[in-house]
Amino acid sequence: MRQLHLNLFVYPAGHHEAAWRFREAEPHRVLDITYYQELAQRAEAAAFDAVFFADGPALPDNVRYASRFRLEPFTWLSAIAAATSRIGLIATASTSYMEPYNLARLFASLDHLSGGRAGWNIVTTGAPEAARNFGLDEHPPHASRYARADEFVEVVSALWDSWEDDALVIDPDSGIFADDAKIHPIQHAGQWLRVQGPLNTPRSPQGRPVYVQAGSSEYGKAFAARHAEAIFTAHQTLDSARGFYADVKSRVKAEGRDPDLVKVLPGISPFIGSTEAEALALQEEFDELIQPEYSLRQLHRLIGVDLSGRDLDDPVPREELPTLEQRDYGSRFQLVVDIIERERPTIRQLLKRLAGARGHWVTAGTPEQIADRMQEWFLSGAADGFNVMPPYLNGGFDVFAEEVVPILRRRGLFRSEYEGTTLRSHYGLPRPESRYTASRRRSAV
Amino acid sequence: MRQLHLNLFVYPAGHHEAAWRFREAEPHRVLDITYYQELAQRAEAAAFDAVFFADGPALPDNVRYASRFRLEPFTWLSAIAAATSRIGLIATASTSYMEPYNLARLFASLDHLSGGRAGWNIVTTGAPEAARNFGLDEHPPHASRYARADEFVEVVSALWDSWEDDALVIDPDSGIFADDAKIHPIQHAGQWLRVQGPLNTPRSPQGRPVYVQAGSSEYGKAFAARHAEAIFTAHQTLDSARGFYADVKSRVKAEGRDPDLVKVLPGISPFIGSTEAEALALQEEFDELIQPEYSLRQLHRLIGVDLSGRDLDDPVPREELPTLEQRDYGSRFQLVVDIIERERPTIRQLLKRLAGARGHWVTAGTPEQIADRMQEWFLSGAADGFNVMPPYLNGGFDVFAEEVVPILRRRGLFRSEYEGTTLRSHYGLPRPESRYTASRRRSAV
Repeated sequence: MRQLHLNLFVYPAGHHEAAWRFREAEPHRVLDITYYQELAQRAEAAAFDAVFFADGPALPDNVRYASRFRLEPFTWLSAIAAATSRIGLIATASTSYMEPYNLARLFASLDHLSGGRAGWNIVTTGAPEAARNFGLDEHPPHASRYARADEFVEVVSALWDSWEDDALVIDPDSGIFADDAKIHPIQHAGQWLRVQGPLNTPRSPQGRPVYVQAGSSEYGKAFAARHAEAIFTAHQTLDSARGFYADVKSRVKAEGRDPDLVKVLPGISPFIGSTEAEALALQEEFDELIQPEYSLRQLHRLIGVDLSGRDLDDPVPREELPTLEQRDYGSRFQLVVDIIERERPTIRQLLKRLAGARGHWVTAGTPEQIADRMQEWFLSGAADGFNVMPPYLNGGFDVFAEEVVPILRRRGLFRSEYEGTTLRSHYGLPRPESRYTASRRRSAV
Repeated sequence: MRQLHLNLFVYPAGHHEAAWRFREAEPHRVLDITYYQELAQRAEAAAFDAVFFADGPALPDNVRYASRFRLEPFTWLSAIAAATSRIGLIATASTSYMEPYNLARLFASLDHLSGGRAGWNIVTTGAPEAARNFGLDEHPPHASRYARADEFVEVVSALWDSWEDDALVIDPDSGIFADDAKIHPIQHAGQWLRVQGPLNTPRSPQGRPVYVQAGSSEYGKAFAARHAEAIFTAHQTLDSARGFYADVKSRVKAEGRDPDLVKVLPGISPFIGSTEAEALALQEEFDELIQPEYSLRQLHRLIGVDLSGRDLDDPVPREELPTLEQRDYGSRFQLVVDIIERERPTIRQLLKRLAGARGHWVTAGTPEQIADRMQEWFLSGAADGFNVMPPYLNGGFDVFAEEVVPILRRRGLFRSEYEGTTLRSHYGLPRPESRYTASRRRSAV
């Protein structure tokens, strides 16, 4: 029977923008590695597929009122790997602002030291601040970022194949450490990148990390159809998620790939209470902690319009919104526009709507209700699982693990224990063969 | 009383080039993180200052007969950090082939998650293969690599200062998470690099990693005098080490820095036996495992002359050696030339001489003799401590820790336990103040 896949999306104090102010949050531990190790251990105890770290190589503005610094994923996840044994470890890393050789090394190494648990959330980096940390005046436009990303994935995939699985011999008697005939320069010379290779490490347990992707723009969806094995996405409604799911799966099929081997995982940020009223009261408690000065600047970033100084109880001025084309980044902008068109909120209502999880699905209810809604999405062609985004950590995850997960298990929707040891095995994905081994095999036939 | 500083230089199966073939080596664990975690734990139990990982962003040639792959230091040391609590963690990273923003993040993060134990071995990368993994046809020459390195250190130092220590406020009541007046763009625009900043993480426990440097060329020594807090170096004789030590300390002084705050740490690769004859027999056992085809190619890399096909018992043809200027990389080439001039070895003798630890000091003796020689170097102005390079691992380290370290302790030359928790405290180095805090303090006077 088809099963849910569940990731825990880690975010310092939790996903609600005011999480760090919540009475049960642990904001003084947001730079303490043991806080994250404990969180990953709890997610592993719940048999989650993976923990996931977002990233961006710049400090966003608007740092005064919320936790906006970044945890560097490779180092953080390596330290988490050492404290866990089964859970997958998904790091976000940028094709625009890293050298492919360096990125390939970091992931191969994370996969080695975790015994095959690495996943790569492939991003082109949407934050314009990043360019100025890397010698550029202008952030490259969407189209060229994705063109480079395609070539980048090609390069690092070849690097991860460059040592065949049996290249390591390690035979003290003969004195052969490695079979150099099975270690291949990749000799890549393309439009954006030139990389000779081979990689300087043997092939890792999974061959390469699981490829994850999260862009929902046109470019993002086309890219995902070609490369992704898991897709993170943000939807406010079942309809929106179903539309996205059908669209992506058909694009995957059109690329000649198996749609079942591409897992679509929307975000969900659940407020959980023993009654629905209690859950809604909890959500309201968070929303009371919102600082409008912060939220208005976040909204400005999302939609490109500065609404500070307006009466928060006025309706959002729809006529002032830019068009999608004017924004050059697609997915999250469109989501906000959809909310505005659908709900016609006041500015204050919109701020609360987005404070929960930056545009992801926020839902409040009893454990049974949360499980019902997840099941509905899962069974009606909207999701293969979820990126779970607790409003606060670590307690907000514990409630989910203790109250919601057992219901999903009783319904046969989620594993009780791991069957395999790698992220590929959790997601039910095959281990890719090195292209060089494949080519050798073909020529031997 | 002045004390020795001891690092453990980690190298997959050990530092002798044939270590992986030795009967007590564990070559099948060279990709197993627990092997390295155990090694670091043993070094920590011995109260060593640090473990040290070399690195280079390319696969060297000559992979058939020896362990030549690379362990990516940031991931590897992060996983080691999670399994230790006091020992320093020194990662090699290249100013030629990394983006400064990315490097600054990785070290800040390693310093955070280890509680202040990170060190940076600053290299410009001497391996010409590296260039071709980063889109370049030609490896940049020594001079321009060091010019970029100077600017690179300036940039990352500013990034590490960019959050003042008290920028993090985390006050749930007032809603202030960070004091943005204490987070500074660095606005760097130089000859090689343009980086706006600020870094996207708060200042780390040590402020910045300890700066380590290992080049012994003219450029390397000048660079070290400006920046280094610890210097790794290779010397075959006490005289050579004393000359280097005096030279470096006077250069440091000429830069207006305190020579006592720059620790000079030569490599030592000790073969230890209960008698001197037993130690020499152990060394001979390793040398019997050498594969001349491998060693000749390594020698070719070092001196630029291919001696394969010659009779190994012929003298090294001194007249065929290039000059230092022709080589464009200084330190290790000069060291080999010195051996040839001093000892007039046969080719076979030279191969054995270099097999032990790639040109570092190899010495065989009883624990007492090893301790005597270290003490002599330490007390006669040749060393502030050592980079210990066991011929094989992990057993070769255990012998040193169990047999030699207690003698050094009885003589009052080495600590029995750590006094502090950071690498800076082990080395007796001050924690640098953020330049922005210093400037604020000065303008307040």
